[in-house]
Amino acid sequence: MKTIYLDNNATTQVAPEVLEEMMPYFHESYGNPSSAHTFGGQVGRNIREARESAAEFLGVDPEEILFTSCGSESDNAAIRSAIESNPDKRHIVTSRVEHPAVKSFCEHLTHNGYRVTEIPVDKDGNLDMAAYKESLTPDTAIVSIMWGNNETGVIFPVEQLAALAGDRGILFHSDGVQVAGKIPINMKNSPVDMLSLTGHKLHAPKGVGMLYIRKGVPFAPFIIGGHQEMGRRGGTENTAGIIGLGKACQLALANMEDENTRVKGLRDKLEREILSRVPKTYVNGGRSERIPNTSNISFEFVEGEAILLQMDAYGICASSGSACTSGSLQPSHVLRAMGVPFTMAHGSIRFSLSIYNTAEEIDFVVETMPPIIEKLRALSPFWEEKPKSCGADKMPF
Amino acid sequence: MKTIYLDNNATTQVAPEVLEEMMPYFHESYGNPSSAHTFGGQVGRNIREARESAAEFLGVDPEEILFTSCGSESDNAAIRSAIESNPDKRHIVTSRVEHPAVKSFCEHLTHNGYRVTEIPVDKDGNLDMAAYKESLTPDTAIVSIMWGNNETGVIFPVEQLAALAGDRGILFHSDGVQVAGKIPINMKNSPVDMLSLTGHKLHAPKGVGMLYIRKGVPFAPFIIGGHQEMGRRGGTENTAGIIGLGKACQLALANMEDENTRVKGLRDKLEREILSRVPKTYVNGGRSERIPNTSNISFEFVEGEAILLQMDAYGICASSGSACTSGSLQPSHVLRAMGVPFTMAHGSIRFSLSIYNTAEEIDFVVETMPPIIEKLRALSPFWEEKPKSCGADKMPF
Repeated sequence: MKTIYLDNNATTQVAPEVLEEMMPYFHESYGNPSSAHTFGGQVGRNIREARESAAEFLGVDPEEILFTSCGSESDNAAIRSAIESNPDKRHIVTSRVEHPAVKSFCEHLTHNGYRVTEIPVDKDGNLDMAAYKESLTPDTAIVSIMWGNNETGVIFPVEQLAALAGDRGILFHSDGVQVAGKIPINMKNSPVDMLSLTGHKLHAPKGVGMLYIRKGVPFAPFIIGGHQEMGRRGGTENTAGIIGLGKACQLALANMEDENTRVKGLRDKLEREILSRVPKTYVNGGRSERIPNTSNISFEFVEGEAILLQMDAYGICASSGSACTSGSLQPSHVLRAMGVPFTMAHGSIRFSLSIYNTAEEIDFVVETMPPIIEKLRALSPFWEEKPKSCGADKMPF
Repeated sequence: MKTIYLDNNATTQVAPEVLEEMMPYFHESYGNPSSAHTFGGQVGRNIREARESAAEFLGVDPEEILFTSCGSESDNAAIRSAIESNPDKRHIVTSRVEHPAVKSFCEHLTHNGYRVTEIPVDKDGNLDMAAYKESLTPDTAIVSIMWGNNETGVIFPVEQLAALAGDRGILFHSDGVQVAGKIPINMKNSPVDMLSLTGHKLHAPKGVGMLYIRKGVPFAPFIIGGHQEMGRRGGTENTAGIIGLGKACQLALANMEDENTRVKGLRDKLEREILSRVPKTYVNGGRSERIPNTSNISFEFVEGEAILLQMDAYGICASSGSACTSGSLQPSHVLRAMGVPFTMAHGSIRFSLSIYNTAEEIDFVVETMPPIIEKLRALSPFWEEKPKSCGADKMPF
């Protein structure tokens, strides 16, 4: 059975061009980039080239790029650095819809004497700007607010948020993991101080990420050890991963137009067709500015995990909530923050496309989804030909 | 020109069997192990198998293995966890010859109110056991002492050290990066609480490491985010790296005998021949128990970097001091701790072999080194046919 992979916000396949670029660094050019000999030194030069590609991708200088092991490390490192660099400040501002790498880390810090303000969002997933402005205080060490939401694709006005923080002398970090390669990003002259990205959402391998740190922003290393990464991260460099990420950055620039025209067109068609064929379906965040590959659709009165299981039988891969929080019986914290009723939040499916998806795949999904939902609704105690009114307090889950 | 790679303590080549095992996880089985669909779920099962291989390698249970991004992360994570788990204790014991991932991290902690005792070593690189016993106090949160030294290969009596700490209720961590695959390690019934390993010293790729955490030992996550690694490390798993590390653990078990007979024989021959052919050469730590692949040889009155450059011209890769600390003009902190005079410390070369080295390679190195040293000594102001007496205070570097 062919796999139709519509779960690219969870992770992506490594691009063939990326893999080809990485291959020599496992078994041939395997030297340590810190070594004095030519065999290792050449690898050091190749890492510098990858850093240049990553910098070009963001419109910044190579020395503003720190390679890490993943987006979560980048997020943790940015926030920890900000609070270490501002030892007298005890307040952090974030949003209610962050990825666990920011959300859980901030929660952890509340046990260490920090106050955390989580800015709410409205039913369309947009940030409460008045609450945001009010939250910024002289005690605020850092704002960490994501650029694009992993579950809904809703884009926050990060440049504007960062400028407001910057005006008050507050560091601004953004988790840009989901926007990289999907919307144009140029950090040159941007007020954003730090930006987290990860390779595996960008057709580079898992196990490599990066953190942009604007020149002049103080940075306290997260992993402390050797002199690697200009003294900003100890540990032998993940050379193959870094080389792969450099190539992926080049490809992402080249594929940006396809992402925003053809891929967006496929996403829009998927959404349009499902909404027209399946009653009682809603697009979460659908009225907001979104990244072009993501659609979060709620199928009322059915359970997301049950939908996924049925889709799986057809080889269609997607997510219910965020893959990173699977295993939890709670509906997604993002949809709860948007006030999506439990009946809908529990039946939400995130479709996330990539440049490798085809029109034929989307046609197949569009044909397959309606009978799946119909079948599941026939089993639901809350669904009749005309659905019963049902409050969240009456939900069985 | 053929490369003769004798720098395996800096990093190793990925074994062909390891690479073969990893390959599907880039472009075919690229799903997120946390995903609900079969495509991702299968990867989760493969990670469990890798964890089983890693556990078997150490004689422990799979749930005692935490996968990380490198040895440095493992080291930082172990020490930070111990101090977070013992918030009232403010003392750390380590040695003077640790890798920067322990040494620099502990130094960093002194700025945060921690006292650090660095246990000295004698001229053979052996730990001062009396000083060690005296160092352990009720205020000691953790002992972190390496198992085998990266520069000299000298092995510390870690089981004994851990038992002494354990008797006093003190957590014991060891950086085992350099011993893994070189000496048999069985952590079952061991008093060691935490042990750091890394893939890239073990013929797995760079960018993946692991931390053994004995059952019952409290652990506070270092990277906080999603539920991955049983809630002990946030961040999408480096699946290809982890699968590779699992395979490398299997191979290391299978190759242990070759490492301790043939490889050790090559190392011993290299040492014996160089010492007999080149006057004024000494093996640092040579009288101590050492890992079987490492030889640290001091060539008096010549500069290590100059030797490396000459060796490089013949395609021979080795290190002067630790590759991780290159870029520094200071001689190795390990050799300084052993009291090796500057004239010798600066002229030290670390040869570190692997199972991929051959007798022919060692023969070539043995023939090549004497004329290199002779040539360099002819240029040295401190070397005459009969070398001048020269104190460290008269050194030009």
